[in-house]
Amino acid sequence: MPHINLDKDLPGMRSLLAFCPEIGEPLGQIANILLRSNDSLSMADRELIGAYVSYLNDCFYCQHSHAAIAVCYLNGDTELVEQVVKDFSNAPISNKLKALLTIAGSVQKGGKFVTTEQVEAAKAEGATDRDIHDTVLIAAAFCLFNRYVDGLATTTPTDMSSYPLRAKQVAETGYGNHIATNPQPAAHHKEH
Amino acid sequence: MPHINLDKDLPGMRSLLAFCPEIGEPLGQIANILLRSNDSLSMADRELIGAYVSYLNDCFYCQHSHAAIAVCYLNGDTELVEQVVKDFSNAPISNKLKALLTIAGSVQKGGKFVTTEQVEAAKAEGATDRDIHDTVLIAAAFCLFNRYVDGLATTTPTDMSSYPLRAKQVAETGYGNHIATNPQPAAHHKEH
Repeated sequence: MPHINLDKDLPGMRSLLAFCPEIGEPLGQIANILLRSNDSLSMADRELIGAYVSYLNDCFYCQHSHAAIAVCYLNGDTELVEQVVKDFSNAPISNKLKALLTIAGSVQKGGKFVTTEQVEAAKAEGATDRDIHDTVLIAAAFCLFNRYVDGLATTTPTDMSSYPLRAKQVAETGYGNHIATNPQPAAHHKEH
Repeated sequence: MPHINLDKDLPGMRSLLAFCPEIGEPLGQIANILLRSNDSLSMADRELIGAYVSYLNDCFYCQHSHAAIAVCYLNGDTELVEQVVKDFSNAPISNKLKALLTIAGSVQKGGKFVTTEQVEAAKAEGATDRDIHDTVLIAAAFCLFNRYVDGLATTTPTDMSSYPLRAKQVAETGYGNHIATNPQPAAHHKEH
């Protein structure tokens, strides 16, 4: 039950953007800048960082939304995504991404938890300044998204088949059309 | 010493926007939407919420930047702003603002810490759905800003006279010119 009068037929972030449409544009822009880039970090890496931080923040909606998008970019490998989110140190991913996920985990606790040693470890594995910047900002942005979604107790779809459907749309066309503008009634969440 | 190669002559957020100018536009838009409005919550109330959350997140730069802006809106009442940030329950502010600051403090811990009782208490003091929405989103946004600033270990001005100077600019013209575009060298931080 949302804390304020949100459209209960719209899930998570979408109900918020229907309530406060003017915030959709900048939030969509942030998501597109940080998550829809393959500049050094892949789109899959970026979504994994977001899903991991959402898991740490215990935000079911964001965790499963962004895990499902990562799955799209990783040829449907649900198992890999789940392992990264829950136990990345034993997952078959690069040491660079492991070092960046360690930094993201510190950001989730607070900016000052990021240590020079963590940053040096990431650089030793080939992370650039831009990779470190993007990791910190993605983790920080999900600390906003997760708190916005859960702080107002938005509706969380429990039908797990709804997440891949939505993820496919985002993976194909980005956040602009979906987060930023005109959230549509969540009809397709109910069709399945 | 910043974790990445930032311009050390630029403080806090400004060094980040010089490193990643494209993020300035959406972050500036968010700041203007949430902090430059007198719709129900005053601009002073909004800055107080931001300064309080930054205090809880132990972000010196954001706390003092936004406290100084609140002081501008409150006719120079530094003492009041300091009391609200450090001990709002005993400060001479409305019960409505106290109830909203309680919600903001929960958001700082995580979205799920906001309780129905806290929201009901705020509504009983006259808070509207929009007030509660804005409080949650301001608090969530500062959880991003604080982590971005401290997660990359940006330079924090320790000359306290620099904060009121900068605050006056923001109070007069908003965030658009200062956060969003073309951060200028921090010359005026050194003049004093």
